[in-house]
Amino acid sequence: MKIITLLTDFGLQDGYVGVMKGVIWGICPDAHIADITHTIAPQNIRQGALALALTCPYYPPGSVHVAVVDPGVGTARRPVAMRVGAHFFVGPDNGLFSPVLDDAERSGKSVIVVQLDQPEYWLKDISHVFHGRDIFSPVAARLACGVPIDKVGTPIFDPVRFSLPEAVISPEGIQGQVMLLDNYGNMYTNIPLAALSQYDPTSLKIKVAGQLIQGLLPSFGFGAPGQLVAVHGTYGTLTVAQVNGNAAALLSAGVDTPVEVHFA
Amino acid sequence: MKIITLLTDFGLQDGYVGVMKGVIWGICPDAHIADITHTIAPQNIRQGALALALTCPYYPPGSVHVAVVDPGVGTARRPVAMRVGAHFFVGPDNGLFSPVLDDAERSGKSVIVVQLDQPEYWLKDISHVFHGRDIFSPVAARLACGVPIDKVGTPIFDPVRFSLPEAVISPEGIQGQVMLLDNYGNMYTNIPLAALSQYDPTSLKIKVAGQLIQGLLPSFGFGAPGQLVAVHGTYGTLTVAQVNGNAAALLSAGVDTPVEVHFA
Amino acid sequence: MKIITLLTDFGLQDGYVGVMKGVIWGICPDAHIADITHTIAPQNIRQGALALALTCPYYPPGSVHVAVVDPGVGTARRPVAMRVGAHFFVGPDNGLFSPVLDDAERSGKSVIVVQLDQPEYWLKDISHVFHGRDIFSPVAARLACGVPIDKVGTPIFDPVRFSLPEAVISPEGIQGQVMLLDNYGNMYTNIPLAALSQYDPTSLKIKVAGQLIQGLLPSFGFGAPGQLVAVHGTYGTLTVAQVNGNAAALLSAGVDTPVEVHFA
Repeated sequence: MKIITLLTDFGLQDGYVGVMKGVIWGICPDAHIADITHTIAPQNIRQGALALALTCPYYPPGSVHVAVVDPGVGTARRPVAMRVGAHFFVGPDNGLFSPVLDDAERSGKSVIVVQLDQPEYWLKDISHVFHGRDIFSPVAARLACGVPIDKVGTPIFDPVRFSLPEAVISPEGIQGQVMLLDNYGNMYTNIPLAALSQYDPTSLKIKVAGQLIQGLLPSFGFGAPGQLVAVHGTYGTLTVAQVNGNAAALLSAGVDTPVEVHFA
Repeated sequence: MKIITLLTDFGLQDGYVGVMKGVIWGICPDAHIADITHTIAPQNIRQGALALALTCPYYPPGSVHVAVVDPGVGTARRPVAMRVGAHFFVGPDNGLFSPVLDDAERSGKSVIVVQLDQPEYWLKDISHVFHGRDIFSPVAARLACGVPIDKVGTPIFDPVRFSLPEAVISPEGIQGQVMLLDNYGNMYTNIPLAALSQYDPTSLKIKVAGQLIQGLLPSFGFGAPGQLVAVHGTYGTLTVAQVNGNAAALLSAGVDTPVEVHFA
Repeated sequence: MKIITLLTDFGLQDGYVGVMKGVIWGICPDAHIADITHTIAPQNIRQGALALALTCPYYPPGSVHVAVVDPGVGTARRPVAMRVGAHFFVGPDNGLFSPVLDDAERSGKSVIVVQLDQPEYWLKDISHVFHGRDIFSPVAARLACGVPIDKVGTPIFDPVRFSLPEAVISPEGIQGQVMLLDNYGNMYTNIPLAALSQYDPTSLKIKVAGQLIQGLLPSFGFGAPGQLVAVHGTYGTLTVAQVNGNAAALLSAGVDTPVEVHFA
């Protein structure tokens, strides 16, 4: 089982993603390749990093995840590969793997990070502007086909990291933020459902963008069409949504908008 | 040959579809997975149902079709799997498979429908909001890998159905409707080409949105650029199109717009 | 290794691409299928032709490339297949393969072109409007599975060609044009980087849409955010871009906009 996933800000218009698949199959012909998303907002490293960390755990051990949101391509920023637990990651060293590394630390997974410095594993002609094609895809294909990670680069111990805001939990409630908007305008927060499980869900008060929502619902279907609701989110955190609507547009809210939960 | 198709209203932005592929490959590593479409209008069960029924016949026997347009996820609506002839279907029991079942009745195919109630075939942690990932993808992967359908659920005999408008054929003509718009603004109707084959195509008069179109063309290329035409459609019904343009925008027309054919 | 690529103007909404994959797998079950792009502007043969020629070289020998931008479907335009060097191409004979044939002539590759006239290799029921499904996908699947190209059609020697503008190089500079816009609004020109390699890149003056750009940068990352820059392009030609922005929108420029390089 050789699985490679692709996550980029390339969009689907230009054939860049198709080119990466051609390069991969030229090196590792029996790889299964899945697109995670290619519509990360251009150069939005934080959005790409969150999407990667949320989706990669659903892939089987041994999967190789290529992520390319790379405003510094062609400059001194380092190309890297990592083994984090049983998963591999390949891309630019600009913080894109920061939440994956955070998760690894929390769960005690082993981590190896190498700077890609072995051009014999790359395409022959390297551009300054498309390392996704020229370096990351060939290296991912080698890793998927069994080349050990210590062959493709030299260990480094200071990959670029950034801090994501974390929810602050007190006896009275939780102060959190919107972390991601999805395609429906649902607003994913950093407020863990686990921190709410001891309370009667109907008693919780959720405040966001000047609105008060009474109670936490298990899913959209328990609200009325058009109702602003707080629901269980896809990835284990509280989500603010409008039933059959777009909560982010309704509230003129977005990433980093504060969300508060009051326990009574 | 293990083929799984995916049709959803998830869009391509959020990685939801990529997550489903990871879950599938974790269970059935050698499955081929194809995206049918992920841009069904959010919660538009009818559009998803039509798209599924029109596209699935082009897949080989044994294919497993996952369809998720699921406004009732997490409520009492049942998760189901079906075998319809030699094809399998997995998704919510909300009418999404209604046209597939209509076709099966018309053509005399065998049908088995089961309610998914065997959690050992699902992911371990089931969310209230993403059964596509937690229930439907794992069950589809099991079916593709050979688990018999009667293992994954209990037979039911009352899957949710809805009625689609049908064209009314009289000696003078046919009264039909627009059923689907495609990416070009072409308007697919429910008027079967087979009901027109006995007439001189140049003699047919087509009325739609106050416009009169004289004659039925075999394809777009027989019209002039900008011309409003009635042509043979992709799926065997009459289609109204504008050559090199967007008929739906031109006519301010859409799904359910009446279309009439007069035989003389 | 059986690889088939798909490039169309079908968009991703309607399931047309998914249907093609079903047809292919019904004939050649172990084919790997990659989407190059499906968002070529409707009926824009030139854009599709350029995208195909730029991306197909990154695929391994033996790959089969299906391209469908086909305003003349159902008319007298011929369906064709080609072997160009070690790659196969299938689609309408309307110029879509013209740049691929240009490249073949420049590099001395062998070329065989056949008109598809053997219906036993097609689907049984042929529509007038969807040869991508009914003719091109089945023929591509046969070629991928080893059917010789001379079985699927009859040789022809006059495939439709068109001329693309070429940059004019003089001792003082180069007169070129914008050839393609990408998803970021970067403007790919026909000015070859190879023709600039003998000059100090900081001395070059680039004129476009009334603006003067001083110097050629190796990549975006060397410019300041918002800066209009000339950089090395993905496919070996000069590209005009705005760092973290959209150059085409900024300049109100597009395909065929003149771009000049002055050597001093």
